[in-house]
Amino acid sequence: MRHILSVLVDNKPGVLTRVAGMFSRRGYNIDSIAVGTERDPAFSRMTIVVHGDDFILEQINKQLNKLIDVIKVNDLTATTHVEREMQLMRIKCTVSTRSEIMQICDIFRGRIIDVSADSMMIEVTGTADKNQAFLDLLSKFGVQELARTGKIALSRGSAK
Amino acid sequence: MRHILSVLVDNKPGVLTRVAGMFSRRGYNIDSIAVGTERDPAFSRMTIVVHGDDFILEQINKQLNKLIDVIKVNDLTATTHVEREMQLMRIKCTVSTRSEIMQICDIFRGRIIDVSADSMMIEVTGTADKNQAFLDLLSKFGVQELARTGKIALSRGSAK
Repeated sequence: MRHILSVLVDNKPGVLTRVAGMFSRRGYNIDSIAVGTERDPAFSRMTIVVHGDDFILEQINKQLNKLIDVIKVNDLTATTHVEREMQLMRIKCTVSTRSEIMQICDIFRGRIIDVSADSMMIEVTGTADKNQAFLDLLSKFGVQELARTGKIALSRGSAK
Repeated sequence: MRHILSVLVDNKPGVLTRVAGMFSRRGYNIDSIAVGTERDPAFSRMTIVVHGDDFILEQINKQLNKLIDVIKVNDLTATTHVEREMQLMRIKCTVSTRSEIMQICDIFRGRIIDVSADSMMIEVTGTADKNQAFLDLLSKFGVQELARTGKIALSRGSAK
């Protein structure tokens, strides 16, 4: 089962190594990770997506809580939550395909953030599934470059 | 000086540990990191933001290229590029403040993705500066939760 962990940590050198090291030492593969600073720059929030059964998750939870830089671990999987990732793509285009790409972009609520004579850069946010579908649809035009953030997630307000 | 490295790596357990370990062993602090799979799921792309002078950057580049899982390192700082990060926020609201929040949201091109009786969840993408300004403006209403992805970046089409 896929789990989303939201981990509050100290913003110090070496914390990412310790957290990632815990996972790799135990052979747990991280599907995706996103690290960003909190409002208070002394802290960072890591959103980690990992596959595992309840036993593995309990182990991960305990091991994470043992690390001195880890302040709080939250498993968002059980609560209703919203998850999002962002994807940047540079798509090849010609004068004749540009309007078709713009149309697809519109439907998926993507945003065109740069354009050159033979390419367009598009930003899209959403679930991994939606972003993948969008990418698949555009791949016939030719994908020059792609970058994805890891997933981030928040619990829904009503779940508090 | 701030540098943005776009690093193509094998998508295998332990790669993140090795990359993060290289930085921490040498005392280089990673400002932000975003890891997402490539189109071919055998590979991942890491976007790493790091501070350092030319000497440090050269060291980082050489050390990264030594790692067997690292396929390509690209320093985007020198080329014209677009960088983006995503921010999810849950903001406290009441019936009377909701419209004011929506107005601010509109100006910053944020998107409201969830709403409950006493809070709203807002997604925004942009540069770190813009996202911070948006957050600062909303902080008077009360920020319940915040999650940020690291930065991702692509070089501009015209720079190819």
